[in-house]
Amino acid sequence: MEEVAEKARVLIEALPYIRMFYGKTVVIKYGGSAMIDPGLKEAVTKDIVLLKYIGINTVVVHGGGPEVSHMMDRLGKKPRFINGLRVTDQETMEIVEMVLAGRINKEIVALINKSGGKGVGLSGRDGNLIVARQRNSELGFVGDIKAVNPDILHVLSREGFIPIIAPIASDEEGRPYNINADHVAGHIAAALKADKLILLTDVEGVFADPDDKTTLLSLISAEDIRDIIHDGSVSGGMIPKLEACVSALEGGVSRAHIIDGRVVHSLLLEIFTNEGIGTMVVKGQL
Amino acid sequence: MEEVAEKARVLIEALPYIRMFYGKTVVIKYGGSAMIDPGLKEAVTKDIVLLKYIGINTVVVHGGGPEVSHMMDRLGKKPRFINGLRVTDQETMEIVEMVLAGRINKEIVALINKSGGKGVGLSGRDGNLIVARQRNSELGFVGDIKAVNPDILHVLSREGFIPIIAPIASDEEGRPYNINADHVAGHIAAALKADKLILLTDVEGVFADPDDKTTLLSLISAEDIRDIIHDGSVSGGMIPKLEACVSALEGGVSRAHIIDGRVVHSLLLEIFTNEGIGTMVVKGQL
Amino acid sequence: MEEVAEKARVLIEALPYIRMFYGKTVVIKYGGSAMIDPGLKEAVTKDIVLLKYIGINTVVVHGGGPEVSHMMDRLGKKPRFINGLRVTDQETMEIVEMVLAGRINKEIVALINKSGGKGVGLSGRDGNLIVARQRNSELGFVGDIKAVNPDILHVLSREGFIPIIAPIASDEEGRPYNINADHVAGHIAAALKADKLILLTDVEGVFADPDDKTTLLSLISAEDIRDIIHDGSVSGGMIPKLEACVSALEGGVSRAHIIDGRVVHSLLLEIFTNEGIGTMVVKGQL
Amino acid sequence: MEEVAEKARVLIEALPYIRMFYGKTVVIKYGGSAMIDPGLKEAVTKDIVLLKYIGINTVVVHGGGPEVSHMMDRLGKKPRFINGLRVTDQETMEIVEMVLAGRINKEIVALINKSGGKGVGLSGRDGNLIVARQRNSELGFVGDIKAVNPDILHVLSREGFIPIIAPIASDEEGRPYNINADHVAGHIAAALKADKLILLTDVEGVFADPDDKTTLLSLISAEDIRDIIHDGSVSGGMIPKLEACVSALEGGVSRAHIIDGRVVHSLLLEIFTNEGIGTMVVKGQL
Amino acid sequence: MEEVAEKARVLIEALPYIRMFYGKTVVIKYGGSAMIDPGLKEAVTKDIVLLKYIGINTVVVHGGGPEVSHMMDRLGKKPRFINGLRVTDQETMEIVEMVLAGRINKEIVALINKSGGKGVGLSGRDGNLIVARQRNSELGFVGDIKAVNPDILHVLSREGFIPIIAPIASDEEGRPYNINADHVAGHIAAALKADKLILLTDVEGVFADPDDKTTLLSLISAEDIRDIIHDGSVSGGMIPKLEACVSALEGGVSRAHIIDGRVVHSLLLEIFTNEGIGTMVVKGQL
Amino acid sequence: MEEVAEKARVLIEALPYIRMFYGKTVVIKYGGSAMIDPGLKEAVTKDIVLLKYIGINTVVVHGGGPEVSHMMDRLGKKPRFINGLRVTDQETMEIVEMVLAGRINKEIVALINKSGGKGVGLSGRDGNLIVARQRNSELGFVGDIKAVNPDILHVLSREGFIPIIAPIASDEEGRPYNINADHVAGHIAAALKADKLILLTDVEGVFADPDDKTTLLSLISAEDIRDIIHDGSVSGGMIPKLEACVSALEGGVSRAHIIDGRVVHSLLLEIFTNEGIGTMVVKGQL
Repeated sequence: MEEVAEKARVLIEALPYIRMFYGKTVVIKYGGSAMIDPGLKEAVTKDIVLLKYIGINTVVVHGGGPEVSHMMDRLGKKPRFINGLRVTDQETMEIVEMVLAGRINKEIVALINKSGGKGVGLSGRDGNLIVARQRNSELGFVGDIKAVNPDILHVLSREGFIPIIAPIASDEEGRPYNINADHVAGHIAAALKADKLILLTDVEGVFADPDDKTTLLSLISAEDIRDIIHDGSVSGGMIPKLEACVSALEGGVSRAHIIDGRVVHSLLLEIFTNEGIGTMVVKGQL
Repeated sequence: MEEVAEKARVLIEALPYIRMFYGKTVVIKYGGSAMIDPGLKEAVTKDIVLLKYIGINTVVVHGGGPEVSHMMDRLGKKPRFINGLRVTDQETMEIVEMVLAGRINKEIVALINKSGGKGVGLSGRDGNLIVARQRNSELGFVGDIKAVNPDILHVLSREGFIPIIAPIASDEEGRPYNINADHVAGHIAAALKADKLILLTDVEGVFADPDDKTTLLSLISAEDIRDIIHDGSVSGGMIPKLEACVSALEGGVSRAHIIDGRVVHSLLLEIFTNEGIGTMVVKGQL
Repeated sequence: MEEVAEKARVLIEALPYIRMFYGKTVVIKYGGSAMIDPGLKEAVTKDIVLLKYIGINTVVVHGGGPEVSHMMDRLGKKPRFINGLRVTDQETMEIVEMVLAGRINKEIVALINKSGGKGVGLSGRDGNLIVARQRNSELGFVGDIKAVNPDILHVLSREGFIPIIAPIASDEEGRPYNINADHVAGHIAAALKADKLILLTDVEGVFADPDDKTTLLSLISAEDIRDIIHDGSVSGGMIPKLEACVSALEGGVSRAHIIDGRVVHSLLLEIFTNEGIGTMVVKGQL
Repeated sequence: MEEVAEKARVLIEALPYIRMFYGKTVVIKYGGSAMIDPGLKEAVTKDIVLLKYIGINTVVVHGGGPEVSHMMDRLGKKPRFINGLRVTDQETMEIVEMVLAGRINKEIVALINKSGGKGVGLSGRDGNLIVARQRNSELGFVGDIKAVNPDILHVLSREGFIPIIAPIASDEEGRPYNINADHVAGHIAAALKADKLILLTDVEGVFADPDDKTTLLSLISAEDIRDIIHDGSVSGGMIPKLEACVSALEGGVSRAHIIDGRVVHSLLLEIFTNEGIGTMVVKGQL
Repeated sequence: MEEVAEKARVLIEALPYIRMFYGKTVVIKYGGSAMIDPGLKEAVTKDIVLLKYIGINTVVVHGGGPEVSHMMDRLGKKPRFINGLRVTDQETMEIVEMVLAGRINKEIVALINKSGGKGVGLSGRDGNLIVARQRNSELGFVGDIKAVNPDILHVLSREGFIPIIAPIASDEEGRPYNINADHVAGHIAAALKADKLILLTDVEGVFADPDDKTTLLSLISAEDIRDIIHDGSVSGGMIPKLEACVSALEGGVSRAHIIDGRVVHSLLLEIFTNEGIGTMVVKGQL
Repeated sequence: MEEVAEKARVLIEALPYIRMFYGKTVVIKYGGSAMIDPGLKEAVTKDIVLLKYIGINTVVVHGGGPEVSHMMDRLGKKPRFINGLRVTDQETMEIVEMVLAGRINKEIVALINKSGGKGVGLSGRDGNLIVARQRNSELGFVGDIKAVNPDILHVLSREGFIPIIAPIASDEEGRPYNINADHVAGHIAAALKADKLILLTDVEGVFADPDDKTTLLSLISAEDIRDIIHDGSVSGGMIPKLEACVSALEGGVSRAHIIDGRVVHSLLLEIFTNEGIGTMVVKGQL
């Protein structure tokens, strides 16, 4: 009995946060360990369904890089990189699309639905959601985002569905392109004028000094992000995440968050606690 | 950190219940200690707001007998009773209406709104919600329910408001009547084809033997209720509550519950646990 | 037969006025003798129902000062005044709310409904309609209007209901405040961008010289109102009425009228005659 | 002042009738002297506009026989009749359509609009409102009603327009037919499930003995109508009117009225008095 | 088989044009030979129905001058002209309205409906669509357009109907006026912010030199139109057509076209071919 | 010029068919050569877009067997069959989903969108569209259809999107299953109460004697289908197609068609010609 009373108390403590986000839009970039560890996978999808039920328009963008490499390997394709970007020939592009829009996308949809949500899997090609353009010819089917048409997202959200988006897009000729999933999340958040963009990563957040775990930044401005990218304090996979935050904020999103997806229910912790977790990025200067 | 993780776990455990009641209608009879103790008052109104935010169409009916007697006392009126029913002359009726529709109703509205809900106080006279007829001339302005016009409740619920109803009604000439609040809750639940009617009381539930606290009935059928009223196993204030359950179930409500309003967050405990609390009344025979 | 023909003629003469106000919003401050004399009460409520049926969005704000004093008297409370304003301690506030939101409000609703309207009684606390702030601590629960949220009025009007509003409001902590009913009417009219505000009073209108009944002003500008308040040509109960007119006009209302509620069907006379009755207040200078 | 008070009293006396017909549908057959006398014309169109403003869905069907004959005369065409029905060759049909759908229809529209209504003139050919079939080849373009598609009427009524219908229809090949206007009114009323059908005529109503003006029947049943047609107590122009009443009642219309259009504001008198005027036809047997 | 394959190919070639005009508004001035020759009449009405079915909001304005003269002749009226404009006395005006709004309008409606459309015939008097003012007293009932209220057109288009408009209008007193049909089409197109105005004429288009059939202008600017009217290169019936194009373009219409209605299916040819036919008028200077 | 006139003529000939199918629902099973040959692919997707633009709610279900086998081959998996059904272990299921829901589905979407449609790719897992159950444990992830929830299809169709469905479904635990695409098309058509189901195949239709190409059946009843399956006159891939027709017709679909997808624009030929092509299946007995 005591335990159930405790349960009621927790629900009531959630009330101010539920009120705060009721009717708001949150875009979630789902990636990293949270997409691999079965326990985390189940936890994240339950979080997403809960957010939808308590009145938040939830939109999910997922990645899937490791599974693409794994499938290329099985098919005997050798990845080739230029400046850290995967050279994507047509055959690679087919594998990317199959893995992302076929296997991973539908697996997330099934997990969402098993938890009682109504997930609908999309790629950027569906409903012309994302229009891409080739970055450069050397990289092949690697694309940048030219335009976002969020109509299909508005329709699905309004009708109670949770859109799950694979980071593939067509150019104007209908050719497929591989797009960085963080960038997709940032642009989708901007196009929806979302209230929050949350990126699930495999680190605690952004560090002032990446080598010193005591320097986690709980707050950083879009301005500062340019500096730390420029001076090399961040590198690798963190750069597109920071870029996604900046493009979301510039597009009118109120808050962007880089949080640790390895923590169980990190999404709920971000939304249902005052202090939040990870690093919050805000517009302008601090 | 551990604590917040625990918090997330509780929210997720609530998910199946949230799904189960999403879009459903619950009518709550609010009365007894839960209307007097300040801590309970705050807890109940927060529960009600939470239920609304997670997608339940919540409708509240309240009583207020003790406060009526108190005000009569202050005004030097002596209560008179016939077979346990208060003789209600015109002056008494005015006091009843002032206390119930004026003071108590608006106080509940204010508590609901302070917790972030959008409460709207009504009596059965507003929007012709309840049409009454006089029970008998000896009792004066004591009424029975002749008809319920739930239009105003549908309009308010659909637009995100929480209707809070005082148990007063007009007859067809516009004269006010005092109606038993349990009966009002039962008839409103029936008119709304609610999924649940919950009556907050000052006992743990219905007992097979009222003198033996180990005989709490967790489940009882509408059929059995007739028997226990007839053989005198229940008495006093429990009778209109049981009658309310029966009329709700006969009107198409799925489940009716008599629960202990003295338990903090008893509403949430009823809804968010498998076993529920108190006594559940179901249709037909067990 | 001749009589019924005369009747038809009158209806047809009303047509241009019906056209003029079709779909418009009129806020009526209901007070004074029109709330006490039974014949006037019935006439006013019939007028209100008629206006609703011919396509006017009618919203009613009522007062009730004399009945509050009467009830205080019965409860042995002595009114205390500072600069003509009633000192309102908590007990007085409870009485005010009981009398206004409980008894008077619901009696008007019942009269409206008996005439075939669908009245819904509200106080400023319902649906957070009016947010108050304390005027000063000495006066206790006497409030000024901080904000008006007219959502609940739009919802009710659109669905065919007539909102009847008691002049009570909550502050942000949910505490009740007594608000001047004329001020409530003025602010509600402004929040609704009403086409007309009509205040029913116990005088023929505004007089250039209050002691000379031949100096009734049929038209006055908001500018002039400041002067006559300042130079003392008006006083007492007329001041808040004039203030209500000014705040309505400043909020975008087209016309405000101070009319004699002691005249039977004065509302209809104001609306259905070219010259109107009483004093009309318009924006700017004459 | 007394006069305006009298005016208010009349408006209030109209209230119960306004309530009774609010949201209802009334089909009016407009013909006879009321279409010729300028004063009556203006009165009828004002009545129609008033009915629309007070919430009645008003639909008008008009005739125009005398003007057709007049135009034929001017064009040197000799009318020919078989059993009292005009033989309608193609040239005659063109004249009928020009006069009814061109001149008369648009004149009524203009009068309606001048009184503040929003009239829209239609013939049965517009929006496939009425599908006709030839009565017999000898009579030429004289048609019977095969089907009514009231979609266009619902659309116009809902949007605040008053449909004004000329009694012309197309057969399935698109050929025009002249249809009896009373029959059109009866069938339109049935298709709309109207609450009332009112036929304006040049007599006081139906008489038990046409030669004895003291035998006006204020009430008659559809059953009885068959008898009086059969036994010859009525004849000439009254027969199609009675047939229209019968087909309206059989189609679900509640009441049909044959009234004297020579009386100024006869429409209002019918609707706004308890006893009504003329003859009321009801279903079944008396 | 080959033939049906060819048919499929043609439909597919139409696809880009269907996409381009989907949901757009096209106003068609229907006049000249296309209103007289039975084959052309049937072709034009089928074109109009097809355009509606493929998603174009189609609105038709028709003329009818020759038939008016013919009817005047039959009635023994002698046309009188001042500067080429018909002096329109009241009797002439009646004939104009009968012929245009009665006969021709309804005949077009019937043809549209026979082809499966849902035509609704209107004049500018219906729903107050066009408000006219007298041009000068000498010409009598010849009007200019003072205002256009396109509400009725929006309602009908949205509900799937095709409005067919006769060029008659009322002034504010309800008096009828004869309006130039080209002008009506231009103003209606402007009021609807149409995407295209198409005028069907009896010439191939506008010629640089009217006497030299090799000088057809496929494109002309609104600026140039003023010059060619001024220097007399165009004259007669072409002038109001050019004026209609200019007023449409000034009102926000994208393109105006003067095409040869003598060519079968000229409407489809204009819309479904890249080069179009006739003369296209665009805004500004070339 | 003659050519464009011919074009107009063809469009007009299509009009009766456009009218007939306006607002109707057509489910298309897309498979066979029409999915492989680039010219046919482009033709089919253009047909689909055209059908949508002319007002048909078009829903597409696709297969993709050959590409699955090809990918299995590349991954070194040997197909194993029991009674002609592919044994589908988990790894095979992953490949099926990647190829069907990832590569093929999105390629069709891109082709649709390139032709101006708004395709949205789904699998039966999205929005819980199709609920599967395992056929038997030996076959592994081969499923039968347990239920269809067409909500997501209604939402997308109403908003102008074309749903493109890959034949994969989840069971109630969220596990993926491979479903026969013909069966999916049949059940979707039944759930939508479609007006037509069209299956594109690589044969001319159903033959009375499969070895005699002169015995093509243009019409067959659902009754007869049972006989020809039973007596072995049809076999192999034709059986599920015939079963799909039967389950569609039993579910309320009006007509089912088995047509030759190798014919360019076969969809348009079926819909836009009186005789249609291939074999039409109707309910009941011939």
